Amino acid sequence: MQINGKSYRTVWTSQDRRAAEIIDQTRLPFEVRIVRLQSLEDAAVAIETMQVRGAPCIGAAAAYGMFLGLAEDASDAGLTRTSERLARTRPTAVNLNWAIGEIAAAVSHLPPASRAAAALERAEDICDEDVEISKGIGRSGLQIIEQIAARKKGPVNILTHCNAGWLATVDWGTATAPIYMAHDKGIDIHVWVDETRPRNQGASLTAFELGAHGVPHTVIVDNAGGHLMQKGMVDMCIVGTDRTARNGDVANKIGTYLKALAAHDNGVPFYVALPHTTIDWTIADGVRDIPIEERHSDEVTRMTGRTASGAIETVEIVASGSRAANYAFDVTPARLVTGLVTERGVCRASEEGLLSLYPERR
Amino acid sequence: MQINGKSYRTVWTSQDRRAAEIIDQTRLPFEVRIVRLQSLEDAAVAIETMQVRGAPCIGAAAAYGMFLGLAEDASDAGLTRTSERLARTRPTAVNLNWAIGEIAAAVSHLPPASRAAAALERAEDICDEDVEISKGIGRSGLQIIEQIAARKKGPVNILTHCNAGWLATVDWGTATAPIYMAHDKGIDIHVWVDETRPRNQGASLTAFELGAHGVPHTVIVDNAGGHLMQKGMVDMCIVGTDRTARNGDVANKIGTYLKALAAHDNGVPFYVALPHTTIDWTIADGVRDIPIEERHSDEVTRMTGRTASGAIETVEIVASGSRAANYAFDVTPARLVTGLVTERGVCRASEEGLLSLYPERR
Repeated sequence: MQINGKSYRTVWTSQDRRAAEIIDQTRLPFEVRIVRLQSLEDAAVAIETMQVRGAPCIGAAAAYGMFLGLAEDASDAGLTRTSERLARTRPTAVNLNWAIGEIAAAVSHLPPASRAAAALERAEDICDEDVEISKGIGRSGLQIIEQIAARKKGPVNILTHCNAGWLATVDWGTATAPIYMAHDKGIDIHVWVDETRPRNQGASLTAFELGAHGVPHTVIVDNAGGHLMQKGMVDMCIVGTDRTARNGDVANKIGTYLKALAAHDNGVPFYVALPHTTIDWTIADGVRDIPIEERHSDEVTRMTGRTASGAIETVEIVASGSRAANYAFDVTPARLVTGLVTERGVCRASEEGLLSLYPERR
Repeated sequence: MQINGKSYRTVWTSQDRRAAEIIDQTRLPFEVRIVRLQSLEDAAVAIETMQVRGAPCIGAAAAYGMFLGLAEDASDAGLTRTSERLARTRPTAVNLNWAIGEIAAAVSHLPPASRAAAALERAEDICDEDVEISKGIGRSGLQIIEQIAARKKGPVNILTHCNAGWLATVDWGTATAPIYMAHDKGIDIHVWVDETRPRNQGASLTAFELGAHGVPHTVIVDNAGGHLMQKGMVDMCIVGTDRTARNGDVANKIGTYLKALAAHDNGVPFYVALPHTTIDWTIADGVRDIPIEERHSDEVTRMTGRTASGAIETVEIVASGSRAANYAFDVTPARLVTGLVTERGVCRASEEGLLSLYPERR
């Protein structure tokens, strides 16, 4: 999508084709800094330090990391070492291991001298494929927005939580893909952006990327959505998901469940956008069986931002001596989800719904 | 309640009986600073700058302000000037005007020479009366906690939102009064404290006062409560209310409605603690008719806390150029409220329920 009128992806091949370049997401929203990843170690550290984040974006960066590692040492030992180094960066990221495996499969049968070039080609394909998936989600969700726009005056008000935006993917995003498509098509839309405590991905990333692309939006605290829906100020909600159970339950950033409850209580449609890669067909009951990560309490007790003098500073915001707990995700039961928006179309949030789009899983 | 083993109220008469003293709540949770209010202007500024906040606490401070103003000028003109100065400090605070009127009624028939002393006496009575109301709420709510404690092993887990604590009243608080009584009685309790964005009264005030009194508690982001309730980690919710409609709808800090929805969805009892002064008998339908204040967006886009070096600093946390909206309250419909906890007992959240406790309003 665009930043100041120029199109970007989150990860791309450098002009000299010897490196990858990324937008350093740790500097957002205050600075748009492009970082050149020249070595395996550069790529690994970029993933570890969350200069890239979001499952598809991490996968793409890891694919480039494989290319960079093979450019340093294309032997079988080098391939193993590269794969292992990258796999250690974010142990729970599914897309990371998938991307490492894809590159390894594409190059292992080749003579060492051809491996780096083949890896680069496959990394670029992985990025393009991710963009196609996001665009598919965008086309599916666009229909929903168009239907709402057709029957109301004024902007279509869309509420989203966290960042399921283009910054989390290679381009377009998941929950945001329909939003960008609607905006680019000239549909009058306005996005309510939940700030999304504790890590504030809404206020820092979603607000940034919508603003940079020119999409009208308003940041709200996570507490506000219920009131807005009660007052008829939200036409639809759309969020991403980290893991979708076979029964249509969705695990997403903590607080998603509360918004789904408010949507249900006020007759506001609540959609979840997802690439097929988030569907975990082995989990029959998401509420019961999806494990919820607990993260460090510092994310709750501290907040980072920019001071009046322009410095980036972290401040403590909780009474000292008070304990804090930090559950990173919650699970929204399928009964509260109006529809799942996938690259293959929109379906009900149920096993039957998912199988209707992915019949190969029957 | 206690701070480091010493009992405090939020406002009290100085030892020399010529001033009022308050805890400066703008310094909490990082510093317990006692401020002496020596003049009408001191009291007015303390209210304006929110060194005292919370309706009953503001009322008590205003009562002392009347005393201080009359000590400076006890003439009829002085009484008018004092009343007007204080009324301007927080124009929408109901308790403020009530307290000003109480003092004026108590002194206006007296000769000027007796007015200041009478005002001080009435101010002290207003404080004592507020404490009695809080204790009444505490006794009413204590029964609920005792019943839960009787049928479960381990601590009673209570979730609260914002600060309806002793810092918002003269002592004990409203939502916290049952909590302090249960704790002081030796019942094993643990409080989940919503941080309560945007002003973070939970993380800064509720966490502080519970910690200072020794009540076990854990701060969570506002997004977390739904997950906790889904997992059986909350036995009851109790919150305050700024305004209670005749039909039992309650206007409280933004986000309360979302917690009530989650409680309802998971069979967790949801109680609202209130002194009779918050009941607005003229409002028949709270969701429809209670106006919701919009406050400055800076409260959303900025956060204040303590840096590693100990300085209090404000940081910007939203992408620059992004608009923010700041609705201060939401209305929880009576159907989601298990019971109203008042100084006269617990009743259903309905007109009939309220009238059963306040039959004089029939």
